[in-house]
Amino acid sequence: MIYWLDLIGTFVFAISGALAAWDKKMYHDIFGVSFTAFVTSIGGGTLRDLILGLRPLWVSNPNYIIAIALGVVVTILFRVYLLRFRRSIFLFDTIGIGFYTVIGLQKALLYGVHPWAAVILGMISAIFGGVIRDMMVNEIPLIFSRQIYATACLAGATLFIGLRYAGVHEDWNMIASILLVIAIRLTALKKGWSLPYLAKK
Amino acid sequence: MIYWLDLIGTFVFAISGALAAWDKKMYHDIFGVSFTAFVTSIGGGTLRDLILGLRPLWVSNPNYIIAIALGVVVTILFRVYLLRFRRSIFLFDTIGIGFYTVIGLQKALLYGVHPWAAVILGMISAIFGGVIRDMMVNEIPLIFSRQIYATACLAGATLFIGLRYAGVHEDWNMIASILLVIAIRLTALKKGWSLPYLAKK
Amino acid sequence: MIYWLDLIGTFVFAISGALAAWDKKMYHDIFGVSFTAFVTSIGGGTLRDLILGLRPLWVSNPNYIIAIALGVVVTILFRVYLLRFRRSIFLFDTIGIGFYTVIGLQKALLYGVHPWAAVILGMISAIFGGVIRDMMVNEIPLIFSRQIYATACLAGATLFIGLRYAGVHEDWNMIASILLVIAIRLTALKKGWSLPYLAKK
Repeated sequence: MIYWLDLIGTFVFAISGALAAWDKKMYHDIFGVSFTAFVTSIGGGTLRDLILGLRPLWVSNPNYIIAIALGVVVTILFRVYLLRFRRSIFLFDTIGIGFYTVIGLQKALLYGVHPWAAVILGMISAIFGGVIRDMMVNEIPLIFSRQIYATACLAGATLFIGLRYAGVHEDWNMIASILLVIAIRLTALKKGWSLPYLAKK
Repeated sequence: MIYWLDLIGTFVFAISGALAAWDKKMYHDIFGVSFTAFVTSIGGGTLRDLILGLRPLWVSNPNYIIAIALGVVVTILFRVYLLRFRRSIFLFDTIGIGFYTVIGLQKALLYGVHPWAAVILGMISAIFGGVIRDMMVNEIPLIFSRQIYATACLAGATLFIGLRYAGVHEDWNMIASILLVIAIRLTALKKGWSLPYLAKK
Repeated sequence: MIYWLDLIGTFVFAISGALAAWDKKMYHDIFGVSFTAFVTSIGGGTLRDLILGLRPLWVSNPNYIIAIALGVVVTILFRVYLLRFRRSIFLFDTIGIGFYTVIGLQKALLYGVHPWAAVILGMISAIFGGVIRDMMVNEIPLIFSRQIYATACLAGATLFIGLRYAGVHEDWNMIASILLVIAIRLTALKKGWSLPYLAKK
């Protein structure tokens, strides 16, 4: 089940990467869009696996590449339709970030990482692909905006570690942590929450 | 023989990196030029090797570092001359990309990677150094321009996989695939080919 | 002792990253500042360890994460005070770069890397975190400015290799090499040294 959720997350992130590449530049060829989709969807997990000393899954399992290709095709065919439903894209993206955070965290713990470092690796899994994407299109990465974004991942990851120590069953723990990430981000959007300013220039 | 071609590719890419650093900024000290040459020539192969779980070759073999240093010295001494022959630089760059694609693809297959992922790793070998270089000098990476660039690598890599399945001898296969990369890129330049626009803003 | 110096270096680099994120953008939330501090302080060592095929230390040892968190807290609490003493920050940063260069170089040699590649890995340890930081905030990386920066690291690393071949005791060698990095950078600042221009546009 985690495997299928991971593939769905890859597909959803590929769509978000392809849409971003398309919107942010004047012109884009099909390769630029595909490359951005690829980096956005596998960047975070690849960095996490390299730090853990593992070979990234997409290297041995072609289904990840198929999921990304599908995401690009869907974006090209249904772009106008997708943009009309930006809210649903945001929802999918949020679900993807929730899953990636918890899956990355679990994987890191499985390979003997210290819990605090595991929290960071979970966040890297969810966030890093988008950071590279934004750097490539020469934008200040989204995580630097005042939107509640990485903070939601951090909250979910912290809850997961806490419930684990409290002895809660892994499955219930996963569901609760993922829902927390999603709930925080959706509520933040609705209520217009943002982190406090640290400084004005 | 592959080893020597790899060294020549390193040398050629170092020149292309050094020229780029020099041209794109107002002032550049000798270190910025050397660093850009280094990253451009070993960035792609290093990322490929990290993903494959191997130690990059330049770490154990000083000849790669010598090749890069030679490339920087040649650039500093003969810059004006090199720029006069931009077309020959373009040719060398194209040859380098052709070789890197096929060498990277072969290496990935040798280490048990799925063919589709191997195609991507071959392209990463050829392209990623230039992507980091462009990000460092704050330009939109060249691969996002409408020039036929990554598409040529993709075509060569796909041909290699196809001929391999067809049972063609590895040496002939390499030569054919490399020539395809070079032929596509040179023809694209001559004929002014570009990928179709996906969108106008 | 090296372990403690490494932790102090992590703390100092975290402060330098947090200050940079704060100063360079209009607004910054607490997460952007923390993330930049994290990347600045562990980016170089992480890349070095990945290339060496090792798991980065911060993954298993929480003290590095504590050092970074402390650096962020100190920055938030004492920012005005820290900026008043920019010169002392510069001094700490310079000390950090000196230590990171030599520690990285030693580690690379310990794992059987060729001396020239070890020099490069030492420089990567000291410099790479700052390069990513500058790329994230969309600035031309500092190492490309004409300031004597990477050149000081290169000089210290070269001295270390030279004294090692000359049979000088490792401890004295370390001290001498670190002092050379610091001395060059401080003198360069005082005297206004810079590398020669390679070109004017």
